Amino acid sequence: MSFRQKHLLGIEPLRSEEITTILDLADRYAEMERGTQKHGDALTGLTQINMFFEASTRTQASFEIAGKRLGADVMNMAMAASSLKKGETLIDTALTLNAMHPDLLVVRHPHSGAVNLLAEKVNCAVLNAGDGRHEHPTQALLDALTIRRAKGRLHRLNIAICGDIAHSRVARSNILLLGKMENRIRLIGPPTLMPAGVAEWGVEVYDNMAEGLEGCDVVMMLRLQKERMDGAFIPSEREYYHRFGLDAEKLAAAKPDAIVMHPGPMNRGVEIDGTIADDINRSVIQEQVEMGVAVRMAVMDLLARNLRACRTPQGVMA
Amino acid sequence: MSFRQKHLLGIEPLRSEEITTILDLADRYAEMERGTQKHGDALTGLTQINMFFEASTRTQASFEIAGKRLGADVMNMAMAASSLKKGETLIDTALTLNAMHPDLLVVRHPHSGAVNLLAEKVNCAVLNAGDGRHEHPTQALLDALTIRRAKGRLHRLNIAICGDIAHSRVARSNILLLGKMENRIRLIGPPTLMPAGVAEWGVEVYDNMAEGLEGCDVVMMLRLQKERMDGAFIPSEREYYHRFGLDAEKLAAAKPDAIVMHPGPMNRGVEIDGTIADDINRSVIQEQVEMGVAVRMAVMDLLARNLRACRTPQGVMA
Amino acid sequence: MSFRQKHLLGIEPLRSEEITTILDLADRYAEMERGTQKHGDALTGLTQINMFFEASTRTQASFEIAGKRLGADVMNMAMAASSLKKGETLIDTALTLNAMHPDLLVVRHPHSGAVNLLAEKVNCAVLNAGDGRHEHPTQALLDALTIRRAKGRLHRLNIAICGDIAHSRVARSNILLLGKMENRIRLIGPPTLMPAGVAEWGVEVYDNMAEGLEGCDVVMMLRLQKERMDGAFIPSEREYYHRFGLDAEKLAAAKPDAIVMHPGPMNRGVEIDGTIADDINRSVIQEQVEMGVAVRMAVMDLLARNLRACRTPQGVMA
Repeated sequence: MSFRQKHLLGIEPLRSEEITTILDLADRYAEMERGTQKHGDALTGLTQINMFFEASTRTQASFEIAGKRLGADVMNMAMAASSLKKGETLIDTALTLNAMHPDLLVVRHPHSGAVNLLAEKVNCAVLNAGDGRHEHPTQALLDALTIRRAKGRLHRLNIAICGDIAHSRVARSNILLLGKMENRIRLIGPPTLMPAGVAEWGVEVYDNMAEGLEGCDVVMMLRLQKERMDGAFIPSEREYYHRFGLDAEKLAAAKPDAIVMHPGPMNRGVEIDGTIADDINRSVIQEQVEMGVAVRMAVMDLLARNLRACRTPQGVMA
Repeated sequence: MSFRQKHLLGIEPLRSEEITTILDLADRYAEMERGTQKHGDALTGLTQINMFFEASTRTQASFEIAGKRLGADVMNMAMAASSLKKGETLIDTALTLNAMHPDLLVVRHPHSGAVNLLAEKVNCAVLNAGDGRHEHPTQALLDALTIRRAKGRLHRLNIAICGDIAHSRVARSNILLLGKMENRIRLIGPPTLMPAGVAEWGVEVYDNMAEGLEGCDVVMMLRLQKERMDGAFIPSEREYYHRFGLDAEKLAAAKPDAIVMHPGPMNRGVEIDGTIADDINRSVIQEQVEMGVAVRMAVMDLLARNLRACRTPQGVMA
Repeated sequence: MSFRQKHLLGIEPLRSEEITTILDLADRYAEMERGTQKHGDALTGLTQINMFFEASTRTQASFEIAGKRLGADVMNMAMAASSLKKGETLIDTALTLNAMHPDLLVVRHPHSGAVNLLAEKVNCAVLNAGDGRHEHPTQALLDALTIRRAKGRLHRLNIAICGDIAHSRVARSNILLLGKMENRIRLIGPPTLMPAGVAEWGVEVYDNMAEGLEGCDVVMMLRLQKERMDGAFIPSEREYYHRFGLDAEKLAAAKPDAIVMHPGPMNRGVEIDGTIADDINRSVIQEQVEMGVAVRMAVMDLLARNLRACRTPQGVMA
């Protein structure tokens, strides 16, 4: 099998064949979920722990459903009300959980790099469910699957990522993934919401929607991450919508069959017009959520196979 | 089968044969739960999501136990700490969950009608676990089952519902159900806690316990819903107990074999005297809780059968 | 079988053969957990409810993993946000849960004796997961298993328990268990953190680490329970660490192969030096956590066997 990772910490370490392996398996899981028999046993007997240091109803639910549908014993640990309050360090928490022999540890953390640090301390497979401004790999994978299903391919597409790039781990993981698959990426947003050093990323940068969306196949809107903008200049919502919010007029610059994406939850009337979001001919926002469960099933299945392989005497990764 | 509903949104749309079908099946589940083999597989492979926009330990636990005992993958989503904080609308939340392919969605919401609205947007079966002052159908069904088991029938009984009728979805669902089954219903409480228009409901209204309880077979006490009384006149607890709290003296007006019910959680010494609540010869309060699990198993089983029927090509509801 | 308890309320009612029975079974579960097949079916079809009136991420997770690995339907009830707010009494909550036919009820409560009170009111097996300053029996059992595995025996050992004895249910349960197994117990700590009446407990008391640790086989550190010290004299952390915190110098007084234990979560630099805690040649702190899951599997398995025996017509405990 071409997927050789022990963890899923980000898109960065993945080879393009590994991405394709994940998406192919996720496609099969997506079909299974639409059928009458949604339950598999790829994770039967394994323990999955969801450790969310930042609350996220939808991402946690997606991982939980994915694990339960594949037969895992799933545990949610809301880390806000936890031992961390009593002065326990992140490492002690990791070592404690590790001693309970989990197999899959799904972690969301407000600090970039915290999930990688954790992965060094434990014996199980770690999945990054979002760390600070760093990566959110399953989001990029579900976006990729959604694009591939809608467009029939995942290369040589013109893809615009619009909005608050600087604070977005979603943007970062997507840029990495879509770049590996040889797409042409454009970032559109106000200069104050562009990350430093963006000029060296091999992408085109625009601060005007009409220009940036010209001829695009895919329009990926981002959530305005107000909660992450400590100290940064925050545009008024009205002004932001006027210049960067996706409405029918701005979307007209893209290709007639361009699809519209958003990672959710949406601020309707801020970064996107509600009618565009609900237009089933253009918006694939609900399909993104659907593919989220399928992608997480696929990733956990693949990581569990590698985990089992390492644990047997003849394992290749022992 | 005589149960043809896609959702359980309230008692109002149910025919009396459908109520009987639910209660008959719940009776069988109640016996199963008292035996040594409590686990069934009617919901195996299905995903049940409990979405509680109002906290409720006992109702949520009852639905969770019911689902797990029938083999469902059960997920709890505490919606207070959720995406709704980030400005996501109820509809977006519904669409997001729907995209994850749940089969059964159990919803409690503080606003009357919110659960019906949700049901229009999703493909799965929706169960109303209480919406504002509107309905709480599984409570009325478990009350009906408890009465039927204690009295041997569910018709031509004199049933008094006492206390805070105006703020009570429990009262509303019970009045609908007991009316459909042709019982004589009396509402007893202070006029300030009676809903507007009660005169047209086909019930008798009293503001005196001794008169209202005269000859009753069933005495159903309600919880004083202080948290719902925004702006309404609130009697002092001592005064309320004196006039409307159920004690041995007031209960003496009912039939000698009258049963005492309460939906819980009880305010002992406010709406009911603790000794009455604990009197195993009169009180069926613990049996109500027990029947709650059985009724929820039955309803979810019946809804799942209809769901599976619609999903197959030869389905009658497709 | 030599384990005849209906509940596990504390170490106090257990005979030493019963303790050995638990530890022997836990040893087998510990080996199972380290292997490739971690999932058993000893609790299949049973309902386990975790009722934590005090938050505890690690203890709750340990019970949850233990139950799920043995096939139980596990429910967590966070009791802070619960009906207790609405004025429901502890007994009403117990009766309500009991009516839902749980099999295993795991309870943590801030008040000593609350768990015993609950056990009197319900039909299922109750496990004390810590009640006030009274007992925390599974902690003492996992400590005992860890000692037995490290030292090859659980008797005639010199065992020091150090720190805040007065506020510690962990200390109390450990003193009871280690005493029953005929070990020599020393308590070390400031006199203000020793319980009244300690002179009659059959233990040696020290207020000096060097003297108390002299020749010890096992050094058991306790967490400084600041949250329990209402009104008591609280030493400064720096002063406390200087006199009672375990560091290499103080540990030198113990036997060269003495093991170091801590129930967690640790206050590094307060009651223990981080380098000692992390020294894999001395510290068995991670193994304590690991044995925690195994001990809880064993106890729940044994209680479930007794429960099933009582429920059958030919049951010996009916």
